[in-house]
Amino acid sequence: MTFRQKLEKITKKNNSLLCIGLDPDLEKNPSPIFPFNKSIIDATNDQVCAYKPNIAFYEARGIDGLKSLKKTIDYLKSNYKDIPIILDAKRGDIGNTAKMYAKSAFEYWGADAVTVYPNLGLDSVKPFLEYKDKLTILLVKTSNPDSKMFQDLYANGVPYYLKMSEIIKKWKYDNIGIFVGATYPSELKKIRKIFPDKIFLSAGLGAQKGDIKRAVMAGIDENGEGIMYNASRSVLFSSNPREKAQELNELINKYRNQS
Amino acid sequence: MTFRQKLEKITKKNNSLLCIGLDPDLEKNPSPIFPFNKSIIDATNDQVCAYKPNIAFYEARGIDGLKSLKKTIDYLKSNYKDIPIILDAKRGDIGNTAKMYAKSAFEYWGADAVTVYPNLGLDSVKPFLEYKDKLTILLVKTSNPDSKMFQDLYANGVPYYLKMSEIIKKWKYDNIGIFVGATYPSELKKIRKIFPDKIFLSAGLGAQKGDIKRAVMAGIDENGEGIMYNASRSVLFSSNPREKAQELNELINKYRNQS
Repeated sequence: MTFRQKLEKITKKNNSLLCIGLDPDLEKNPSPIFPFNKSIIDATNDQVCAYKPNIAFYEARGIDGLKSLKKTIDYLKSNYKDIPIILDAKRGDIGNTAKMYAKSAFEYWGADAVTVYPNLGLDSVKPFLEYKDKLTILLVKTSNPDSKMFQDLYANGVPYYLKMSEIIKKWKYDNIGIFVGATYPSELKKIRKIFPDKIFLSAGLGAQKGDIKRAVMAGIDENGEGIMYNASRSVLFSSNPREKAQELNELINKYRNQS
Repeated sequence: MTFRQKLEKITKKNNSLLCIGLDPDLEKNPSPIFPFNKSIIDATNDQVCAYKPNIAFYEARGIDGLKSLKKTIDYLKSNYKDIPIILDAKRGDIGNTAKMYAKSAFEYWGADAVTVYPNLGLDSVKPFLEYKDKLTILLVKTSNPDSKMFQDLYANGVPYYLKMSEIIKKWKYDNIGIFVGATYPSELKKIRKIFPDKIFLSAGLGAQKGDIKRAVMAGIDENGEGIMYNASRSVLFSSNPREKAQELNELINKYRNQS
């Protein structure tokens, strides 16, 4: 099954475009990772279209942290196999090395999708794209304040993130996804226009204070789907993660139906 | 001791600007990683100014691979503590996540330097720069053929890699290093001109067929040093890694002395 098929199925089943970031922050959460992740997953699995562990939070705890990531992924695959897993790893290297990262993400970790820097060019992305059923999500415009610094420079007359989008559009692969921060809805709208049919991932709705209404209006495809909106800290460290996930999911659906 | 002090000391002691990439390729080398790395280190430690494990080659083998990386780093620290270790991880993420990657590279792995994407802007790089004695090496121009695709676009009238360099130059940190592929000597020359005092890392001399003479002439600082030239495959999979390392080191030194 391709990533798109898997996503469409769960989007329908759970009526959700909400992705939850499994980012167990060391300082906020000094307890063991796996039981924490399990409690979040058990409380929210009927409210999401995907889970997205950001590998940095596991790497910060070294090999023990990575063992907890493995356990989390195994738990998801055994109990909630319909829900796609996005490994947020932001990898990217030259060809023979990129091949190793692709092998790690898709074969070792068994992720359904991975986030990748396109900045080294097509030869660095191809090793990921060779995994046809997996989604390779390219970072085009990130959610942080300083993303303007390099991503909004004018390149050959248009902002870099748009020029980058135009170049990526020429790459004839069905399994490319696009990342745009939910904190930049007008940029999201422009990039969606370039890729009407691609699957998008957008982050920054919760703790980063992205405007949900604008992000939804700008990001959904013509069928009112085709995008995953990620929230991490706002759900994980809420007093009631299930309620918070429901609330976000309902808000996203409200604006989906208005558009 | 700062990275610069450590590098200057070993550069003098070994009379070397050669960095060896510890990239145990799965296909070329299906044997256990650690004994392979140990044999390379034992054969070449008086010919190098640094070792640079690229973490992708370890991640491709999952947690077992990462255990071999830990063993390799521990071996270097116990036996050759004068030689700096560069973790080639090409990380980069928004602030609170970048903090986790910095913690992993410098605290868990104990690397002296790490390679980082600057593309998300200063707020994504700061968490690395807070480790004052460590070097954070920013990827400005990579060695692969398709690096032209995005890195050579014109941004506000100059190539993107130069515009990026001008912006980075304004960041007032002593512990920033610069990565430029050795396969692009004229770009290396232009970037060196912007950063006369920074430590550079350059890769692609060996298997990627970078022109050593041009790369050395373009990359060294006014004291004939301040740059590490990395070779991986050409040394690791040579019939005699020691001889190959010596040969590369002598060639680099020949052109250093000519310039």
